[in-house]
Amino acid sequence: VLKVMLNSMNNVDLASLLENFTEKEYTILFRLIQKEKAAEVFTEMSSSMQETLINAFTRTEIKELFDDMYMDDTVDIIEEMPANVVEQILDVTDKETRQTINRLLNYPEDSAGSIMTVEYVDLKKEMTVEQALKKIKRVGIDQETIYTCYAIEQKRLIGIVTAKSLLLSESHVLIKDIMETNLIYVNTHEDKENVSKLFHRYGLLAIPVVDFEHCMVGIVTFDDAMEVWQDEVEEDMSIMAAMQPNEESYFGTSVISHAKHRILWLLFLMLSATITGAIITKYENAFQTLPLLAKKIGLDPAIMAAPLITTLVDTCSILIYFNIATHLFSL
Amino acid sequence: VLKVMLNSMNNVDLASLLENFTEKEYTILFRLIQKEKAAEVFTEMSSSMQETLINAFTRTEIKELFDDMYMDDTVDIIEEMPANVVEQILDVTDKETRQTINRLLNYPEDSAGSIMTVEYVDLKKEMTVEQALKKIKRVGIDQETIYTCYAIEQKRLIGIVTAKSLLLSESHVLIKDIMETNLIYVNTHEDKENVSKLFHRYGLLAIPVVDFEHCMVGIVTFDDAMEVWQDEVEEDMSIMAAMQPNEESYFGTSVISHAKHRILWLLFLMLSATITGAIITKYENAFQTLPLLAKKIGLDPAIMAAPLITTLVDTCSILIYFNIATHLFSL
Ligand SMILES: [Mg+2]
Ligand SMILES: [Mg+2]
Ligand SMILES: [Mg+2]
Ligand SMILES: [Mg+2]
Ligand SMILES: [Mg+2]
Ligand SMILES: [Mg+2]
Ligand SMILES: [Mg+2]
Ligand SMILES: [Mg+2]
Ligand SMILES: [Mg+2]
Ligand SMILES: [Mg+2]
Ligand SMILES: [Mg+2]
Ligand SMILES: [Mg+2]
Ligand SMILES: [Mg+2]
Repeated sequence: VLKVMLNSMNNVDLASLLENFTEKEYTILFRLIQKEKAAEVFTEMSSSMQETLINAFTRTEIKELFDDMYMDDTVDIIEEMPANVVEQILDVTDKETRQTINRLLNYPEDSAGSIMTVEYVDLKKEMTVEQALKKIKRVGIDQETIYTCYAIEQKRLIGIVTAKSLLLSESHVLIKDIMETNLIYVNTHEDKENVSKLFHRYGLLAIPVVDFEHCMVGIVTFDDAMEVWQDEVEEDMSIMAAMQPNEESYFGTSVISHAKHRILWLLFLMLSATITGAIITKYENAFQTLPLLAKKIGLDPAIMAAPLITTLVDTCSILIYFNIATHLFSL
Repeated sequence: VLKVMLNSMNNVDLASLLENFTEKEYTILFRLIQKEKAAEVFTEMSSSMQETLINAFTRTEIKELFDDMYMDDTVDIIEEMPANVVEQILDVTDKETRQTINRLLNYPEDSAGSIMTVEYVDLKKEMTVEQALKKIKRVGIDQETIYTCYAIEQKRLIGIVTAKSLLLSESHVLIKDIMETNLIYVNTHEDKENVSKLFHRYGLLAIPVVDFEHCMVGIVTFDDAMEVWQDEVEEDMSIMAAMQPNEESYFGTSVISHAKHRILWLLFLMLSATITGAIITKYENAFQTLPLLAKKIGLDPAIMAAPLITTLVDTCSILIYFNIATHLFSL
């Protein structure tokens, strides 16, 4: 009964649920999950739970788990684990997989390469729709998405074929006649923030990633792009609230801790505001150049957007207020 | 040549491109776009361009355009148009469509109903995979998505079938054996912000919408959910920067205009800070209750998150600073 219940639950909910149990309990419960479902639940868990589970698992169990996992998730997990756990994971992967993991780990931290996966459906332009659908049925189970397929010629991306166009076309139609050739793609070293912006602009489900030789090397899917966007928004909100991005999520930080971060900024800014009296009177021009100035001295211009400027305005206003008050009460 | 170029362009890019032309020019250019592509480009355009085009079009052209459009986009456009243009649109729609438009217009502004569309693929649980794929091929062209299909029984949603499961299953398998019955769905009156959160939590492509009798009435797709999320983030950022949400996007507003909005707040807050001196000394407790207080008096608690509190902190710090300064220089 417990087994049936666990296996009928949504993966994300199941991972959250397991967080409420002790290490021993969730290790037992996790073993009740079907093999195919287990990898997806595992990727949704916290790093500490993942570490506990790997340490509790046999070599065979680890192998089964990571065989079912997409490469981007494997790499994300490896990045979070201590050396001894990483060893256990690499121990169960074959040479080719280890090479791919190594390649993915080597892309710059904020690049498209660091969030892409390598499991996608590749087709040839001479295939018919029928042949393409047969290939999808055969290899689809191991791909992160089958809704966008890629026509490849000599390792190069030449067209994008949606599952929609395959499902709506007659079986004898050729891939080259239904593929989109006006391609939207990114380079492995493109900033992942820009990648997520492309998803928003074009409403994409997945975007192909090519290397400097224009060979197709992977895809980024929309769930991972959404995560990037969420992280960016939280980062920007933190910056706007004039503090360094915390480990904890912005929305989880207490009000007092925000206030404390801000006080340091404030002390610095009060000084600069009093010293550079010119800024106060000629503030219109000064304010407009501040973000540019910030860029020059290497600060994120977003820092200038709200906190610096509003604090300056605050300080100025208070000064004016005190002046008026002083005159009114003839102090 | 021009026609081929226009028609090979991405819809979003084409809509942006047309923004750069005069009314006369873009009316001519828009007429060169293929009928099937035209509706999608049209929905990406600004309201003023849409209005100009509708006024320039014949009755037949308007009919062709809106016949190809999804209902949620039709409703979005109607909401933005002046009465005479709305009349022209309703004039070309049949009675049933007009009723649907009316129903969608009547959902509360921020509800799931207001962002849903009614074009989705419905299946029966006794169908085979082969029959389902045939139905998709027949009706799919008119649906907003075919990647998530819905098993319906007596108007009620009983299962969700992904195109992936259809493509990976043998043709004789029954829908009821591959459909997901652990359903994630929302009510028509659910806050659209919560709807977009479900998309993020579960990585959804679409979510079914049911009415109070649990009958399925529509779907929200991920592109529209992303838009909601983007709007919410911009709204929250605006609130955090202590101003009312503007017509223009937050990121488009000039620094000076932000500063101006904030000054009004500041004047109000400075007064409250000076009068209620107790808040200054017992600030820890007071600050923690502020957001709750705000909720009671009907303000968005987000307003409290950054601006009110930081302004209070600013004011307090300045007071302390001035006190110290006064003592130091023996003023
Ligand atoms: Mg695999
Ligand atoms: Mg990564
Ligand atoms: Mg994932
Ligand atoms: Mg992924
Ligand atoms: Mg990832
Ligand atoms: Mg960044
Ligand atoms: Mg950023
Ligand atoms: Mg709407
Ligand atoms: Mg749309
Ligand atoms: Mg839509
Ligand atoms: Mg919409
Ligand atoms: Mg709202
Ligand atoms: Mg909000």
